[in-house]
Amino acid sequence: MSALHIPHVRSHNVAAHSFLWLKFRCPAARNVLIRTIRQITVCAMFQTFEDLSDPSCGAPHAALLRAELTRRGLDGFLIPRADAHQGEYVPPHDCRLQWLTGFTGSAGMAAVLGRDAAIFVDGRYTIQVRDQVDMSVFPAQHLVNEPVTDWLATHLQPGQKLGIDAMLHTVREVRRLEDVCREAGAELVKLSDNPLDAVWEDRPEPPLGAVELYPTINSGKDATQKIAEIQEILRGKKADACVLTQPDSIAWLFNIRGSDVGHTPLPLSFATLPADGKPALHIDGRKLSNSVRDSLSELTDIVEPSAFMSGLETLGKTGASVLIDPSLAGVGIADAITAAGGSLIEAQDPILLPKAVKNTVELEGARAAHIRDAAAYINFLCWFDEEAPKGNLDEIGAAEKLEDFRRQTGALKDISFDTISGAGPNGAICHYRVSRSSNLKIPVGKPYLIDSGGQYIDGTTDITRTLAVGSMTDEMKRHYTLVLKGHIAISTAKFPAGTTGAQLDTLARIDLWKAGLDFDHGTGHGVGVYLGVHEGPQRIAKTGTQPLEAGMILSNEPGYYPTGEYGIRLENLEIVTEPRDIPGGERPMHGFETITLVPMDLRLIDGALLTKAERDWLNTYHARVYDSIGPLVGEKERAWLENATRAI
Amino acid sequence: MSALHIPHVRSHNVAAHSFLWLKFRCPAARNVLIRTIRQITVCAMFQTFEDLSDPSCGAPHAALLRAELTRRGLDGFLIPRADAHQGEYVPPHDCRLQWLTGFTGSAGMAAVLGRDAAIFVDGRYTIQVRDQVDMSVFPAQHLVNEPVTDWLATHLQPGQKLGIDAMLHTVREVRRLEDVCREAGAELVKLSDNPLDAVWEDRPEPPLGAVELYPTINSGKDATQKIAEIQEILRGKKADACVLTQPDSIAWLFNIRGSDVGHTPLPLSFATLPADGKPALHIDGRKLSNSVRDSLSELTDIVEPSAFMSGLETLGKTGASVLIDPSLAGVGIADAITAAGGSLIEAQDPILLPKAVKNTVELEGARAAHIRDAAAYINFLCWFDEEAPKGNLDEIGAAEKLEDFRRQTGALKDISFDTISGAGPNGAICHYRVSRSSNLKIPVGKPYLIDSGGQYIDGTTDITRTLAVGSMTDEMKRHYTLVLKGHIAISTAKFPAGTTGAQLDTLARIDLWKAGLDFDHGTGHGVGVYLGVHEGPQRIAKTGTQPLEAGMILSNEPGYYPTGEYGIRLENLEIVTEPRDIPGGERPMHGFETITLVPMDLRLIDGALLTKAERDWLNTYHARVYDSIGPLVGEKERAWLENATRAI
Repeated sequence: MSALHIPHVRSHNVAAHSFLWLKFRCPAARNVLIRTIRQITVCAMFQTFEDLSDPSCGAPHAALLRAELTRRGLDGFLIPRADAHQGEYVPPHDCRLQWLTGFTGSAGMAAVLGRDAAIFVDGRYTIQVRDQVDMSVFPAQHLVNEPVTDWLATHLQPGQKLGIDAMLHTVREVRRLEDVCREAGAELVKLSDNPLDAVWEDRPEPPLGAVELYPTINSGKDATQKIAEIQEILRGKKADACVLTQPDSIAWLFNIRGSDVGHTPLPLSFATLPADGKPALHIDGRKLSNSVRDSLSELTDIVEPSAFMSGLETLGKTGASVLIDPSLAGVGIADAITAAGGSLIEAQDPILLPKAVKNTVELEGARAAHIRDAAAYINFLCWFDEEAPKGNLDEIGAAEKLEDFRRQTGALKDISFDTISGAGPNGAICHYRVSRSSNLKIPVGKPYLIDSGGQYIDGTTDITRTLAVGSMTDEMKRHYTLVLKGHIAISTAKFPAGTTGAQLDTLARIDLWKAGLDFDHGTGHGVGVYLGVHEGPQRIAKTGTQPLEAGMILSNEPGYYPTGEYGIRLENLEIVTEPRDIPGGERPMHGFETITLVPMDLRLIDGALLTKAERDWLNTYHARVYDSIGPLVGEKERAWLENATRAI
Repeated sequence: MSALHIPHVRSHNVAAHSFLWLKFRCPAARNVLIRTIRQITVCAMFQTFEDLSDPSCGAPHAALLRAELTRRGLDGFLIPRADAHQGEYVPPHDCRLQWLTGFTGSAGMAAVLGRDAAIFVDGRYTIQVRDQVDMSVFPAQHLVNEPVTDWLATHLQPGQKLGIDAMLHTVREVRRLEDVCREAGAELVKLSDNPLDAVWEDRPEPPLGAVELYPTINSGKDATQKIAEIQEILRGKKADACVLTQPDSIAWLFNIRGSDVGHTPLPLSFATLPADGKPALHIDGRKLSNSVRDSLSELTDIVEPSAFMSGLETLGKTGASVLIDPSLAGVGIADAITAAGGSLIEAQDPILLPKAVKNTVELEGARAAHIRDAAAYINFLCWFDEEAPKGNLDEIGAAEKLEDFRRQTGALKDISFDTISGAGPNGAICHYRVSRSSNLKIPVGKPYLIDSGGQYIDGTTDITRTLAVGSMTDEMKRHYTLVLKGHIAISTAKFPAGTTGAQLDTLARIDLWKAGLDFDHGTGHGVGVYLGVHEGPQRIAKTGTQPLEAGMILSNEPGYYPTGEYGIRLENLEIVTEPRDIPGGERPMHGFETITLVPMDLRLIDGALLTKAERDWLNTYHARVYDSIGPLVGEKERAWLENATRAI
């Protein structure tokens, strides 16, 4: 999914921003403007398809940065993709890595020394980085196999000073950087401002997306009660306060939503929450209408972001024990507290788990959103089956049409990420983002992969289907069916309390493994309710150490990607159910309730590869899809659905 | 499996020991004597069935210990079950926890303060501890849920001195103990001798089991080469030397075997291995014949155990960086090195992994041992099927007969652990050890569980079968078949390089989970070659973080245990195979080669619950069993086997 901010048409700030951006020279920034104008004047899409980047910015921007470093007496500097919130989405204001290098991926880092520089990206982006970045200025390294710390160990000279922006690097990350600097005899300099910002001409303004209250009818719980519950957690950990840096944690806590970044209704902000007393929400006041401000003021002090650091100092001076999440909080936050005399309790953001475990109102909302989304999706599938076999449909056309069907619900707030519309070989690129230059005709005779989702007031959806276009080979059907078997294995799993996602992950893979196949991503991620389409701590993956609890929502999305051929992924969202007694059993077991209600493509299923239990699951699921969604679509689509969900 | 030492009949030391033990007053020690005499004079069994313990020792022995603590100015003392080698088997000489409390389980610890005391055991032993220990002297606590550190935190007073024997507690364990003492304002006193030993009248002598060379024809690799390979590992870790505390690591390294503890051919010893130069093996010289001493001397210096600590000091004085395993090495070892000026590199025992990955000669040996063992086992099964339905057979009778059939191979060195012979409700106790007082008639109409193994010069076996006695109910068949499905899921798994045992564990459970059932032990443990029947680091369990490598041997033993009814467990040993290409696949995959060749009981299988693939596995396995073992048994047994392995 793309990381770049797509301004929301409904935001009153878009026009103001557009004028500011007229003078942009950087192609990426110019593209943002083009998209904004298109959104207003042409089709008002949430997704755009412009090429986002131009490698030619690398050399001049690196020169600008190096000159600034010299002025400041620094020998090097690190430029992470992350902003101070360590989130998946970053507003244009904070797209420093993109400005410097051209790279638009959702994770990465650049290192700049006097002569040498490098960019570090993970396996998802090894191809993309070569298209977007001037390799003669920023040679690409593998973020995991050749990490930045290794590179620094061989490139830093004794006595050198390596700068970092103290808000952009987490406490845990800085420990590793300090180790490597110490071993190299160099010094890590933690800066309270960012040298890159000083030379970033035409830098976009910070976003000013309006904040809305998220009603209790959707959240299921008053913010007052949420605050009290988190304060109880803090007291249990003997913390006097905690610092919240995750915008989705803050949005959940105060029952607010915003529009500062693309596809996720987040208001960028910080907050401090004392174990007793009133929290402080650090947010740009221009994002708040008077009525929102009035309501919020009953819960929390509202403070400008510029006073955030001085607030931490004040907290530190009281000698408070302050809980921070060392994997999420910038080291500048920790340093401000301890320098003023406070102490730290390092622990997971106390909101992550309560937010992950949805209440019954949130679950009802998620179910409703998925039914609405499924009806739109089935309209799309019916249309696709008419159009695609003609051979003229392309990736952008399909993505646009799907967004259009979702818009027709009248309830779409945004798409939940840039639709991954992968024809043929593009389907095999897991994090593919279609642009005008990559756009392929959807070939007849190959499976087509489409991964998409919607943001609705009551829920966030995320669904992947792989669709037959024309006649499918036996091999394609075998691949699809093996992936489906993994999907069914997760969907039908039962498991005792305390089971982690890591324990379930293999169920999605074992049939692929037996065929000598695999996929290089996790099986599932947590999903929010009108919040992030990716949230933790729950996940189904080798690294998923969080026990799954009833009320969590997770994706179930095994896949298989024959390089250069096509991609297959089948994704539904699942709610973890309460432990239930099983007849003849003695221990109650959790399970999954599937809330995505869209058929699997029968034309891609080799029934001979399914066990009876798998076939039963498929037929039962399809009957449920037809019964639930059939009444919500037109006659033609219902006829299509009836055929698509027939028992096999 | 029992922890107590069963002296080997072949040991020349047995007679000498017997006379020393004649004066024992402790019932446990007396029982050892009784067994020894029985072994010599009556039936020469490796397994005995005496009641091992008497709770009445608790009060007088606690009084003796407390008086000694007072004499030494200590306020408390910890008595772990472990000896200085942290192994599963402990010689009578080191059964301090048993002497003090009567408890004979394989893990546990007692804490003794001036007034209070407690014994800590894990979930396997919560019933046993109540039979063996005087709860008025040593109230039982759950080792995991109410750990000793929690108990100390509430019972230690400021200013008190808590003693520990520095050789019996690992570096890692002592860190936790130091934390708890610091928080309580108490002092942890690390002692170089043990106060309990000072008051332990009639303490058995240390074992003096003869050491034998383990020939290269069985080990597959010269000790010289092994030493060179481990030294290469040490240099890679920049260690000047390592200290080896695990007798099975030492046995593997020097290609020696011994007979110091029950059922595992270990010579108790320590060793230090420099990164360059000759190792030092610290072993009682009386265990070595002249020829063994001569051969070993070419590889290593041979030093008395009494010089071990001074050797560490000498090493420390050179300023060496010494690798120790903080989970295995006593803190006294670490302290001796650092006090003398050396430094520590904390890492896993460097022999664990090379020992776990068997070479082709070892694997050939393991296969041969399993074929030999299977023939003996099938003789037993044929006999059992005649005898058990008469209703007169008891648990001891079955275990004795099985050992007898194994002895008839002429190759049995020992059983690999005390046979778990569990009739009816005793089968539901996972770590059941049958004794004269617990011995049950094997009931007709219930499944019977038997878990056993043999030590042969070329391999170690470990097999569990659950056998129908009389007519089985549909429910029993359902339970058996669900366990079998889990067993087959592991046996047929394929998996890419890097996969851990934790990733596979769920495959053995998912069908049980779907039925609301589970088992409370890991699915599999590592197994040695004529070494420990339990070895790490490989395991199939939630905690199995070691990637599985080709050549490792693991057990595959899911189960189900309806309390008070019966136990079901099905265990084969499996070799991890090299990654192999799969037709139609693109990634080579590891798998398992089953080396245990004994039929599953068809009378307990509900064929309707098996998928076609599972049924195929069963029929293929049974055909292989018949083809491999049929020619090795008599005519009657072959006819029995033909029926037992018929296709279903």
